[in-house]
Amino acid sequence: MLTPLPETPFLVLNTSKVQYNATRMADRLRAAKVQLRPHVKTAKSLEVARVCHGGQTGPITVSTLKEAEFFAANGFTDILYAVGIAPNKFAHVARLRDEGVSLTIITDSLQAAHAIGHYCRDHAVHLPTLIEIDTDGHRAGVKPNDADTLRAIGQALDGNLHGVMTHAGASYECRSVAQIEAIAEQERSGIVLAANTLRGAGLPCAMVSLGSTPTAIFARSYAGITEVRAGVYIFQDLVMAGLGVCATTDIALSVACTVIGHRKDKGWLITDAGWMALSRDRGTATQAQDQAYGLVADEAGTILKDVLVSQVNQEHGVIAHRHGIELNEKDFPVGKLLRILPNHACATAAQFDRYHLETQDQSKLTLQGEWQRFSGW
Amino acid sequence: MLTPLPETPFLVLNTSKVQYNATRMADRLRAAKVQLRPHVKTAKSLEVARVCHGGQTGPITVSTLKEAEFFAANGFTDILYAVGIAPNKFAHVARLRDEGVSLTIITDSLQAAHAIGHYCRDHAVHLPTLIEIDTDGHRAGVKPNDADTLRAIGQALDGNLHGVMTHAGASYECRSVAQIEAIAEQERSGIVLAANTLRGAGLPCAMVSLGSTPTAIFARSYAGITEVRAGVYIFQDLVMAGLGVCATTDIALSVACTVIGHRKDKGWLITDAGWMALSRDRGTATQAQDQAYGLVADEAGTILKDVLVSQVNQEHGVIAHRHGIELNEKDFPVGKLLRILPNHACATAAQFDRYHLETQDQSKLTLQGEWQRFSGW
Repeated sequence: MLTPLPETPFLVLNTSKVQYNATRMADRLRAAKVQLRPHVKTAKSLEVARVCHGGQTGPITVSTLKEAEFFAANGFTDILYAVGIAPNKFAHVARLRDEGVSLTIITDSLQAAHAIGHYCRDHAVHLPTLIEIDTDGHRAGVKPNDADTLRAIGQALDGNLHGVMTHAGASYECRSVAQIEAIAEQERSGIVLAANTLRGAGLPCAMVSLGSTPTAIFARSYAGITEVRAGVYIFQDLVMAGLGVCATTDIALSVACTVIGHRKDKGWLITDAGWMALSRDRGTATQAQDQAYGLVADEAGTILKDVLVSQVNQEHGVIAHRHGIELNEKDFPVGKLLRILPNHACATAAQFDRYHLETQDQSKLTLQGEWQRFSGW
Repeated sequence: MLTPLPETPFLVLNTSKVQYNATRMADRLRAAKVQLRPHVKTAKSLEVARVCHGGQTGPITVSTLKEAEFFAANGFTDILYAVGIAPNKFAHVARLRDEGVSLTIITDSLQAAHAIGHYCRDHAVHLPTLIEIDTDGHRAGVKPNDADTLRAIGQALDGNLHGVMTHAGASYECRSVAQIEAIAEQERSGIVLAANTLRGAGLPCAMVSLGSTPTAIFARSYAGITEVRAGVYIFQDLVMAGLGVCATTDIALSVACTVIGHRKDKGWLITDAGWMALSRDRGTATQAQDQAYGLVADEAGTILKDVLVSQVNQEHGVIAHRHGIELNEKDFPVGKLLRILPNHACATAAQFDRYHLETQDQSKLTLQGEWQRFSGW
């Protein structure tokens, strides 16, 4: 049963590409004998999380406790909440664990570790905690060779230490596959060093968790690792394509929009998809090929070479040719449907409350059903 | 009845400041004897729209038909949909009008005007349409002196022409009040020229609508104008403060977040408010004072001089001092609540589904009730 096209802008998902991306990652990690813990913050969709695990439930990573609530209620009960815990969330975590959710939290802070230790003693609960390790100077975490801090946090956690985790966010800024491979090995060796430091101090370290989509795709070894996390791989996007992680034809997500006018003096099109629909993410700005606010494809999803979204306002997008060639009224009349491939799938998907599912068609966009997604905290 | 603080991040609204901003604009336009048509895309909240009109309903501007549906169902039936119409939305507009909504649409396209004319003839309906005028080269619109195109669109609309509208988006890039005054006069004189061209050709032009928050605040004349549109004035933000449109203390909106860790080697704080909470808007990047991803205030809302959100990931924010001074664990312990003032209120508010209402307190954040908001299309 085909669905009529909704009013633009709307979010289109190609489930064949989702399936391909899921299988590629799952097969790779199965062959490497390491557990996959997909990050569900990208899709925030039950159906997509199931595709990640071959139609089943399985371990997941979340970025909010709202995600933890939703996925736990739908059978995904092995959850890592991968943002440093704040004390105002302890009670919520404890309640979820009391309800049977195997929820693990993280911190890189001695202050927070003491607070976790105190809370657990005061409330007679257990909050399994990973120490976040900074293997690339990207954002947060204890340095892998900072043995004193690692031991101090491990001890302050007072029986709640469960392992270590890291995220090689710097992999997003690589310029070659060789660089990504090097970052992946740095991520692996760093977290294994931290794990061994804790074990050497007589502290437990059952879980050794790392990952980012680029390093998960290109790592040459997972020695000493218990699991790999990755999120954006399930949809892929222009940042990943620019890194060589995927082809642009692997990108499963696009925003459908309509031409609403022309700026003839400039050769531009105006559409009804601005930053509210596309997000303001400019993740390709520092890559070799800057894709502005996204590449433009025709209704069937075929990329129009060198046509991109050059500017955005709240509900207006400006589409221009990279080399200034005029996009004219004849080829792009008012009412024409176009599709925008996102720089960053997590950010673009977050602007919508549902995915419209694309069916296979060579010439035009046809939809069959939708999957819900959610936002907020 | 005070509300306990929710888990961070959450959106805080100071209703006293909303009231002040509303009164300032309403008083100004009342004195100038010109109608205010607030743009409800900023707040997407029924309560905020009512404050704009002194507790009553009144004319509004919308950026989506979802806004039109919602506000019309709640008594705001005089609506201008201020994004160029696409043919896939004609039927929706016609239905709303059939239900009694006084909904006006816009276009700057001769193709679209012909399509509107055809649709109205074929369906025996009337779709009052404004021609969008480009008074500043900012985005879309017919040039004010392009008399041939104005007349051609007016005629193609075939009885549906209702007036003209313009938006001086270039006012956001001004560097002085004198520049804003000049843009405001250019906006006014340009649209009046277009209106007179249409009238001179025997075409109707009852509605002459212009506006942006900066030009609405600083225009010296509204001669020939029937109404002024403005949106962000109701909350104000760092972009408006940078333009001199408001003081930073007028900004009614902030995002509450919690310190979750420290990057001691850099002197940074890590919080739980990343781009998902703040948006990626960097509207101050081209101003004299770049505010990165937002200015930081303490729990009571007092701005911490030169402390700003320097980087964002999905659910992580990095807070740094503008001049590199260390933000230490003692002054900013894990668990401390901070508040971020937004670059662009429309973009930040859009990341949340409700406003938590702040009560007056000199030392800490206290909340009393909430107002719902919505997103999407």
